[in-house]
Amino acid sequence: MNIEIMTINQFKAGSRVDGFFLIKSVECKSSSNNKKYLDFTLADRTGEINAKLWNVTEEDEAYSANRLVKVRGMVTEWQNALQFKIEKIREVMDEDGVNITDFVPVAPYTSEDMYNDVLEYINKINSEEIKKLVNYILEEYKETLMYYPAAKSNHHSVRGGLLYHITTMLKAGERLCEVYTFLNKDLLYSGIILHDISKMEEMASSELGIVSEYTIEGQLLGHIVMGVKKIETVAEKLNINPEIKMLLEHMVLSHHYEPDYGSPKKPMIPEAEMLHRLDDMDAKMYDMKKALEDVEPGSMSDRVWSLEKRVIYKAREF
Amino acid sequence: MNIEIMTINQFKAGSRVDGFFLIKSVECKSSSNNKKYLDFTLADRTGEINAKLWNVTEEDEAYSANRLVKVRGMVTEWQNALQFKIEKIREVMDEDGVNITDFVPVAPYTSEDMYNDVLEYINKINSEEIKKLVNYILEEYKETLMYYPAAKSNHHSVRGGLLYHITTMLKAGERLCEVYTFLNKDLLYSGIILHDISKMEEMASSELGIVSEYTIEGQLLGHIVMGVKKIETVAEKLNINPEIKMLLEHMVLSHHYEPDYGSPKKPMIPEAEMLHRLDDMDAKMYDMKKALEDVEPGSMSDRVWSLEKRVIYKAREF
Amino acid sequence: MNIEIMTINQFKAGSRVDGFFLIKSVECKSSSNNKKYLDFTLADRTGEINAKLWNVTEEDEAYSANRLVKVRGMVTEWQNALQFKIEKIREVMDEDGVNITDFVPVAPYTSEDMYNDVLEYINKINSEEIKKLVNYILEEYKETLMYYPAAKSNHHSVRGGLLYHITTMLKAGERLCEVYTFLNKDLLYSGIILHDISKMEEMASSELGIVSEYTIEGQLLGHIVMGVKKIETVAEKLNINPEIKMLLEHMVLSHHYEPDYGSPKKPMIPEAEMLHRLDDMDAKMYDMKKALEDVEPGSMSDRVWSLEKRVIYKAREF
Amino acid sequence: MNIEIMTINQFKAGSRVDGFFLIKSVECKSSSNNKKYLDFTLADRTGEINAKLWNVTEEDEAYSANRLVKVRGMVTEWQNALQFKIEKIREVMDEDGVNITDFVPVAPYTSEDMYNDVLEYINKINSEEIKKLVNYILEEYKETLMYYPAAKSNHHSVRGGLLYHITTMLKAGERLCEVYTFLNKDLLYSGIILHDISKMEEMASSELGIVSEYTIEGQLLGHIVMGVKKIETVAEKLNINPEIKMLLEHMVLSHHYEPDYGSPKKPMIPEAEMLHRLDDMDAKMYDMKKALEDVEPGSMSDRVWSLEKRVIYKAREF
Amino acid sequence: MNIEIMTINQFKAGSRVDGFFLIKSVECKSSSNNKKYLDFTLADRTGEINAKLWNVTEEDEAYSANRLVKVRGMVTEWQNALQFKIEKIREVMDEDGVNITDFVPVAPYTSEDMYNDVLEYINKINSEEIKKLVNYILEEYKETLMYYPAAKSNHHSVRGGLLYHITTMLKAGERLCEVYTFLNKDLLYSGIILHDISKMEEMASSELGIVSEYTIEGQLLGHIVMGVKKIETVAEKLNINPEIKMLLEHMVLSHHYEPDYGSPKKPMIPEAEMLHRLDDMDAKMYDMKKALEDVEPGSMSDRVWSLEKRVIYKAREF
Amino acid sequence: MNIEIMTINQFKAGSRVDGFFLIKSVECKSSSNNKKYLDFTLADRTGEINAKLWNVTEEDEAYSANRLVKVRGMVTEWQNALQFKIEKIREVMDEDGVNITDFVPVAPYTSEDMYNDVLEYINKINSEEIKKLVNYILEEYKETLMYYPAAKSNHHSVRGGLLYHITTMLKAGERLCEVYTFLNKDLLYSGIILHDISKMEEMASSELGIVSEYTIEGQLLGHIVMGVKKIETVAEKLNINPEIKMLLEHMVLSHHYEPDYGSPKKPMIPEAEMLHRLDDMDAKMYDMKKALEDVEPGSMSDRVWSLEKRVIYKAREF
Repeated sequence: MNIEIMTINQFKAGSRVDGFFLIKSVECKSSSNNKKYLDFTLADRTGEINAKLWNVTEEDEAYSANRLVKVRGMVTEWQNALQFKIEKIREVMDEDGVNITDFVPVAPYTSEDMYNDVLEYINKINSEEIKKLVNYILEEYKETLMYYPAAKSNHHSVRGGLLYHITTMLKAGERLCEVYTFLNKDLLYSGIILHDISKMEEMASSELGIVSEYTIEGQLLGHIVMGVKKIETVAEKLNINPEIKMLLEHMVLSHHYEPDYGSPKKPMIPEAEMLHRLDDMDAKMYDMKKALEDVEPGSMSDRVWSLEKRVIYKAREF
Repeated sequence: MNIEIMTINQFKAGSRVDGFFLIKSVECKSSSNNKKYLDFTLADRTGEINAKLWNVTEEDEAYSANRLVKVRGMVTEWQNALQFKIEKIREVMDEDGVNITDFVPVAPYTSEDMYNDVLEYINKINSEEIKKLVNYILEEYKETLMYYPAAKSNHHSVRGGLLYHITTMLKAGERLCEVYTFLNKDLLYSGIILHDISKMEEMASSELGIVSEYTIEGQLLGHIVMGVKKIETVAEKLNINPEIKMLLEHMVLSHHYEPDYGSPKKPMIPEAEMLHRLDDMDAKMYDMKKALEDVEPGSMSDRVWSLEKRVIYKAREF
Repeated sequence: MNIEIMTINQFKAGSRVDGFFLIKSVECKSSSNNKKYLDFTLADRTGEINAKLWNVTEEDEAYSANRLVKVRGMVTEWQNALQFKIEKIREVMDEDGVNITDFVPVAPYTSEDMYNDVLEYINKINSEEIKKLVNYILEEYKETLMYYPAAKSNHHSVRGGLLYHITTMLKAGERLCEVYTFLNKDLLYSGIILHDISKMEEMASSELGIVSEYTIEGQLLGHIVMGVKKIETVAEKLNINPEIKMLLEHMVLSHHYEPDYGSPKKPMIPEAEMLHRLDDMDAKMYDMKKALEDVEPGSMSDRVWSLEKRVIYKAREF
Repeated sequence: MNIEIMTINQFKAGSRVDGFFLIKSVECKSSSNNKKYLDFTLADRTGEINAKLWNVTEEDEAYSANRLVKVRGMVTEWQNALQFKIEKIREVMDEDGVNITDFVPVAPYTSEDMYNDVLEYINKINSEEIKKLVNYILEEYKETLMYYPAAKSNHHSVRGGLLYHITTMLKAGERLCEVYTFLNKDLLYSGIILHDISKMEEMASSELGIVSEYTIEGQLLGHIVMGVKKIETVAEKLNINPEIKMLLEHMVLSHHYEPDYGSPKKPMIPEAEMLHRLDDMDAKMYDMKKALEDVEPGSMSDRVWSLEKRVIYKAREF
Repeated sequence: MNIEIMTINQFKAGSRVDGFFLIKSVECKSSSNNKKYLDFTLADRTGEINAKLWNVTEEDEAYSANRLVKVRGMVTEWQNALQFKIEKIREVMDEDGVNITDFVPVAPYTSEDMYNDVLEYINKINSEEIKKLVNYILEEYKETLMYYPAAKSNHHSVRGGLLYHITTMLKAGERLCEVYTFLNKDLLYSGIILHDISKMEEMASSELGIVSEYTIEGQLLGHIVMGVKKIETVAEKLNINPEIKMLLEHMVLSHHYEPDYGSPKKPMIPEAEMLHRLDDMDAKMYDMKKALEDVEPGSMSDRVWSLEKRVIYKAREF
Repeated sequence: MNIEIMTINQFKAGSRVDGFFLIKSVECKSSSNNKKYLDFTLADRTGEINAKLWNVTEEDEAYSANRLVKVRGMVTEWQNALQFKIEKIREVMDEDGVNITDFVPVAPYTSEDMYNDVLEYINKINSEEIKKLVNYILEEYKETLMYYPAAKSNHHSVRGGLLYHITTMLKAGERLCEVYTFLNKDLLYSGIILHDISKMEEMASSELGIVSEYTIEGQLLGHIVMGVKKIETVAEKLNINPEIKMLLEHMVLSHHYEPDYGSPKKPMIPEAEMLHRLDDMDAKMYDMKKALEDVEPGSMSDRVWSLEKRVIYKAREF
């Protein structure tokens, strides 16, 4: 029998398959006759399928969600649904030449490019003290920033999503400073770069940019207050001007605007107000664009939770 | 005795004065001995003063608020406050060469320049139907647009304020379309130009750009619904594509976003969402800039009603 | 084997059945062996049953929801539930003499009678202009008014429900004008007749009085604003007194009272206030009556969503 | 000097006056030279005036608000306002033939007529138990019902206002039972009569129908709960069917509908729902009618607090 | 084959079992071949299992929820779940020596002990009138107080839970009176004892302390108003000082504080304020303690509905 | 003429007076004839009086609010009100032996005693790390803690009020731990001591315990977030266990409970929940006690803003 390389949307009952897949979830279960088996959800860009591995070895139990595996097996049918019976499975190795980004949603630019964009904006900051502070913190998070999403399931929840969110805001912020010329760019740029920086400690993300859970400190304090603490600590260490420290802390603290969304203070400087608006606007534009991706002109999208449950309309050509 | 030309902030008890002033309010009253007199509040850029005209003729009773007058009289003191006793008064004539804008707050650009800006943006609209519709309506309101403020007492409540609000939004909208490239500029530009157009029928403004009251229809229907009716009527007359008509009506209808602020529908196309955000952002940036105008660095502004009663901080140099 | 005429509540596994049914829903599916079949929900007044048609022809795929069909087939049992295997199926023909109203819930009066009731109330209007305007619009909607419900799933969601809602409100309104004699009957009657008229363009209803969905314009603008536009357009055409036009538009605009329910303005004339109250009262009386229909004295109804999730009590005899 | 009989709106500085007035308020004060005087506000239907009585005797100090007095004195002027200097004052006597209702706002029907209306509605109640209960309670409050207003300052705050409110609701309720025929008239009529009955113990009213304050029990428990207690006590005494007792208590308890307005339970029987609607409708119709009393056609009323601060429009003739 | 005595968590497919269980629910159903059977959920402290009794006699149909039964039968497996096939079943008899408290959650103290605690606190009341009133009511409810829970599914929903709630509040209240010495202990103790007393008539509880439903009067009036009525009736009978009656009624009426939670009046005496706080604090402390019972240090609990959906953290040792 | 020592409530027009007073406010004004004078409000425990100092020297302009002065002068009368004409004035000197606490409201215990109470509670903390952290912070604020109030105008706004608030909470917290024995006393005590510690940097208080304004950082960040920063910084310095640091930060962060009152996270450990309740309870008990101080039994207090505008009732003796 022939072993085909196929994507999940090509699976048919009876096919024998070889391929690379992402483990979305895996659980060790027992069958009615008390035999252990691993119950997987495997995924590629084209879809997901339930898969089972029988004859589980101890090493097999180490498989965990959000890892890439190479798998061989048979597609079967059970109660009208396709199922995959795994015969061979192993973790992906470097030699396999498999690209993570074929398995998870990613930002439309490479993390390296976006990171360099951020550095360029830092160079546009005039205040040496602000530049020093932002650079210090950015350096500290550089590695994780390469893959962190901006959220667990809302806007920008893709690999590199946090960087994507930051760079888009920087671009929009720069342009609005041309219109509202009284805004201080140093504050706005640094506020944009730092506003969500502690999300990387509030949420636990795999290198795939998938958040599995919130950390304990994330739940007890939240990324906003954690961000304020971070600025406080670094500013003390670098001996930053207290006015700057206070303003940046205020910007991070107030960037969600509403107390119910985590900001105990509302923006009290224009740059904090603009930071909040850029943050919110970028999230909503992202969600609207995404909502309309698969919608026909003249039709409504599904209800979008993050847009206050609205449906979004894709206009007809005119 | 010498008659001086002075501004109100230079008045002292005993001065005799000649000058041009704006009538802020005027009321016909009777004194305890049953004598009619006119009770004015006069203003110039430097302040206000109570003024009284005795020996009222029938023509005198025609003076009304928001008119410019030439006045001669004497400054007196009554219960610790200065008062002005009018000896001669007449309406300002063209020959006086008096400039309205010295007496009322005005937008920072001339109405003519701003109007031309709007026309340029209309030229950037690709759809001929949209262009035709917007031009038709703009033409209809051209004259009043020259002086209407955007509000009675909130943001942009200055002479030419509505034009100022529209042109700033157009500039910001154009720039954000560079970042959020999936937005349709035709819709966004036309939505910006039309969104508040019926404010000119909701509020009654003098040519000074001062709104004295809301019209009856303004109170019973509101400028949002009046704007929808306007588009409906003109679109029927010009035989505009129904999709375009519907989208523009939706944008006007939803531009306040919250039902409590007059929008029975929330934005359901990205351009309506962006229109709302530009509208709100421009108002808040205007209010913040204004709030900080007379504030010392390191100090807080007074509480600003339109900014949810916040105080705004003017940062120290750093 | 004998073929019985039976209603759905009489079905037993093994019965062979002939009968007329309403298609509540129909979907074309594929079985595990890739064979197309139609998956129906059939209904009559006594209940619903899942039905399957195998060996689907191209014409069969034209069957759609809310149509009446004549069907022959066999009742089977599958996983503890009855199922119906269709052998023959065709659309109902006039000769069948089948009455739609045996398959869908209908108002307690015929549409013709209710329509005549409305005409009588129009005759009681003194103002010729109002009479002309209301007659014009009524004529335009006459045909659809015969079957439209007043809602998709709430109160008066029955065939002819909109007419039923209007006529009940007219009766109650007439009586309350006897108590509150300062109310203007012309305004109240015309407001009642027009208040929901654009529901017929906001929702798409079959002739069975069943609403399948909201229209795009219905979602983007809503029946309240669409109703205002309708009055505007017709009033312009008929050259109606602007005061009348404005008052009727205000009544339609404010009849939901709360901004959150779609009214950007609250009632500002007594007739608008009364219109809102009649509308709401009629809806709630309808829902309460319906909620108690199958309840035993001394017991509570199920929770009723449209009555703010209240349970309603049916009192014991006393 | 001539002593004129004049109403307050006819007073001029210098007039000597004889007349009957209502004491709106009275306070004993001391002048700068430590002399006691009584400081009155006197009123008739045409207005109010400040009045002072010097040379105060001990009996004079017994004068209290809301009493009628006969007064003689002199009109003077003090700081641009008229003032009345009392020379002689005494309480009104029966022989004076003065009618209270010339001094305070009253219901448009006599209390006797309205009371008889209520009795007639009680006669229309079929249930002997309900009739007995309502009659018992009505008898208990008969005397105070003759003059109590329905509120301290809101709707129906006139002498006899509570009776006026009850009888109007009975009339409207009777008519709506013709439309909504499933409603139980016994429950609705008795609910209407009893719903506000404990207002007479919640508020302390003078016989002029003017409420000076809330009682302590009124503040700690409120008329709704006090009404429930009243029904409980009387029903126990008269041995009323517990179902009836429970239903009437529920109607009184739920008649304000909203928890925030004092009803811990919402209406759960249709008659309770209708009672609430009649109560609220009657209040709002009263307020709207009153708001428009002095308004010109084509104009707006002042803002009305009890109508959620709305302004009300008086339509032009059409 | 051996018949084992086992708890539900020890069941395996194939075991034959003898045991005592609580009927959590029971329903009479028909199988596909039209045979009646009883479908049980049986429970003990270790878990629950679905059980079926075939060959149902008429007496068998009398089994009802919340009763203890002795059962013999066979454990089987159906669709991956264990099921219990009942062979013999009878109600538990006194001779069985089975203790209810092994089957339902109970308070940590015996009802007798807790009842005596309450009596001791009554003895600490100085006012003979209050003591008399509280004793009278307590005596009336003594029997049911032994087993009533304090709620259907929230805090203290265990057998004896109401007593447990009362006694804990009394202990906390006594201690806080040492700190806030201006509080009147007579009012606070009596308020605590009476505040929820009518829950025993609002909810219908079995002697197991399990509430199956709310009573009709409970739904139409609620325990707060029923408690006020109870105090009113008993106070009238015992001729209690009206000030005391009013204060106790106010305390019961206001103890939920928020109108939305059933209190039409907020606390207006300090003891009512403290009563509310003790009530709420005791409920929340109970819920938090319970939420953390099975949580590992360093982990979060599940989301707790009654704690506003919060998760609760169990701290690590430090 | 004799110079009397008198308190303000003894002043009469014409008295000559010597005395010590607190400057509540002072402003430099100009009279109508352009002469500078100082306009004071002077106070002692018995009341306040307006006072004027003419012939102002440069040193005189240094007088500021919240200082004690010795004053000699004359009581006059102006427009029915007493006024004080200052003849001599100087700041109070140590030799005067004047006690601040005779001029401002103070806590009922000395600050020294309360501070020692706090130290004793710290000694009851078992964890050496917590003890070290709390002691370190307490030491830092020791001096200002002696006089700071707990609020600008709400509860405990008296000299030493913050200490009074802390110690009362500690006493109540200790007692409730006897009832709710699962609470960790180390966390609760330290949470109580630290929860408001940054109020001393949020508000600017004079040594009289009177807060004149909020600091800039107080307005931009608030005492809650400032308190978290303080713990972070000190814990880093003292190398405290991160679990302890996190828990204490969470307690401070969540102690206002509601986001609208400044807490972005709600309590997620039982000790944080109890901390919030103790804080709120102590504030409300303080306000209620104060509200009833001058109320007659059987009467209501004035409306109390901080008690949600409630009036509070002082019960009659029973």
